[in-house]
Amino acid sequence: MSTIAVFGAGVMASALTNPVRDNGHQVRLIGTHLDDDIIDAVQAGRPHPGLQVELDPGVQPYHFAQAEAGLAGADVVMVGVNSFGVDWMGHQLVRHLRPGQRVLIVTKGLRADAAGQLSIFPEVLRQAVGQLADQVTWSAIVGPCIAGELACRRPSCVVFTGQDQASLDLLAGLYRTDYYHVWTSTDLVGHEVGAATKNIFAFAQGFAQGLLQARGWADGPHRMHNYSAALFAQGSREIHDFIRLLGGDPATADGLGGVGDMYVTSVGGRNVRAGALVGAGVPFSEVRDQRLRGVTLEGVAAIGVVGQALERLTAAGQLSSQAFPLTRFLYRVVSQDAPLDVPWSSFFGGQA
Amino acid sequence: MSTIAVFGAGVMASALTNPVRDNGHQVRLIGTHLDDDIIDAVQAGRPHPGLQVELDPGVQPYHFAQAEAGLAGADVVMVGVNSFGVDWMGHQLVRHLRPGQRVLIVTKGLRADAAGQLSIFPEVLRQAVGQLADQVTWSAIVGPCIAGELACRRPSCVVFTGQDQASLDLLAGLYRTDYYHVWTSTDLVGHEVGAATKNIFAFAQGFAQGLLQARGWADGPHRMHNYSAALFAQGSREIHDFIRLLGGDPATADGLGGVGDMYVTSVGGRNVRAGALVGAGVPFSEVRDQRLRGVTLEGVAAIGVVGQALERLTAAGQLSSQAFPLTRFLYRVVSQDAPLDVPWSSFFGGQA
Repeated sequence: MSTIAVFGAGVMASALTNPVRDNGHQVRLIGTHLDDDIIDAVQAGRPHPGLQVELDPGVQPYHFAQAEAGLAGADVVMVGVNSFGVDWMGHQLVRHLRPGQRVLIVTKGLRADAAGQLSIFPEVLRQAVGQLADQVTWSAIVGPCIAGELACRRPSCVVFTGQDQASLDLLAGLYRTDYYHVWTSTDLVGHEVGAATKNIFAFAQGFAQGLLQARGWADGPHRMHNYSAALFAQGSREIHDFIRLLGGDPATADGLGGVGDMYVTSVGGRNVRAGALVGAGVPFSEVRDQRLRGVTLEGVAAIGVVGQALERLTAAGQLSSQAFPLTRFLYRVVSQDAPLDVPWSSFFGGQA
Repeated sequence: MSTIAVFGAGVMASALTNPVRDNGHQVRLIGTHLDDDIIDAVQAGRPHPGLQVELDPGVQPYHFAQAEAGLAGADVVMVGVNSFGVDWMGHQLVRHLRPGQRVLIVTKGLRADAAGQLSIFPEVLRQAVGQLADQVTWSAIVGPCIAGELACRRPSCVVFTGQDQASLDLLAGLYRTDYYHVWTSTDLVGHEVGAATKNIFAFAQGFAQGLLQARGWADGPHRMHNYSAALFAQGSREIHDFIRLLGGDPATADGLGGVGDMYVTSVGGRNVRAGALVGAGVPFSEVRDQRLRGVTLEGVAAIGVVGQALERLTAAGQLSSQAFPLTRFLYRVVSQDAPLDVPWSSFFGGQA
């Protein structure tokens, strides 16, 4: 039996308590300072407020004030916050992480420096903890997995990725069940880039729904699936190109860590909702400041980080201005309230 | 002005009269022997029965009995029948095709010989017409395009593919409009294989909907998108592998001609409906012989052709039995009423 300390009690991290509990491991769910209501609910045996599903009764809940006890002696430390919490988590790991522990990261995103160089989050966290980085192992979970479905134990296929195959095998062994199917891959860069950038394109998958309303077509028999599929296809191309840009294996984009994850992210969620509002004609600044004020939009945040990085790389002569036309267009939409005039002719190598 | 003879008056071929009419070309719509009601409707100015949309009034309708006149002197001959009509169309082309004409094929599918060797339809049609094959040019249209949306002039992005770039440029020029965006590619094999095999995986995209009903989960808050996304991702992998098997460029699967087309095919249609029935627990033989008797299921037909070919290639020692696990599973479902016990562990290289 292993001890897994899940740090962050959001929907994804909490749903991930299921497979390890079902495999008989000790699981501690540690809330952040924002998660007290979740931990209270779990302690009281009520459904998780975000999932609306009860966690396994064997999950041991810890408030943030008890984080030290929750993390002490854990074999696995799961980083379960969202992308906005990555720096905060770095500080926490400096305090609580111990040599020999295995870090397993659910958080997705990319960080850009002033020159536009992009880094994956496992690298950001490694740097945050300094010399401790080489005394623990670093792995991450990616792939198409909606938390609510995992919370109901519905079939899900994911990838555990990292540079240390032995760690991946050990972690995959802790989590594999007959509903949670785990592959492993040492293409950490490719998988992290795919997981972060697919969120960018999910925002664009909302457009058609809004456009149908704005044009009075919502009640007619015909949709705009061709429009969405073309954006999906260009999104797929750009995920491949992002992985190439950061030095991963582009073939990773073909499977669970790329188009599979983009597919599931495109069916719904907050980024798609924001895209639908833009499709309906609401300037993005109004979506951000009024319509969806206070709503966590990881995809839009990724567009901001990556869009600005692409501009910097292009200004420095390190990237063609023709590269990533969809991402650049989405960046104009979220940073300048650009209208939804999709630059189709720049897509797919710009032949059309 | 060019003259385009569209042979076959089904939904896709008929919708494709829009962009060429909008560009001012002469367009003749020639029904097959099965299309008399469609041609009658177009002649009478009524909506196309399949599209429920009126075609451009300048489209010139021809009954099958007038096919010779309709095809005479045409610059472009569009092959617009579905995959079940490919041999019939070969016979028609032998009679009516003339040197110098440009053939543009909408029909999608693969043909297998007794040894399991697969051929793309443009090759099947070339062989059907004998020495005339080298006196005309052969091109095809692929990509994510639902006919009804094109009939309403909603944005669509497609690829014109063939071995002769000059023909592709000419044809693309006839069809490009501000709603119909056309790229060109000389990877004919890759695009044809992608277009044919994506239908295979669309069938599997129906399963989740049926499973939700069968398990009593249809009214609950959680779906099975993770399940569908994993099938989508494995479908993407197998499209890449099919393109490799037939000697095309696997990168074609990353864009419009692969995952883009699979995406749009997965949102609905007859193959998805058949898959949903299987998901709900109906043996496929009952779907075929009773529930959807008489309904054209091109995806299921492709599963039959390709699934049998894979068995033959494997028996001959030309293909690993581990290759194409999803296609083989779908073949067992449609040929042997196999239950929906998805062989997850064989997917993605079989690591899990």
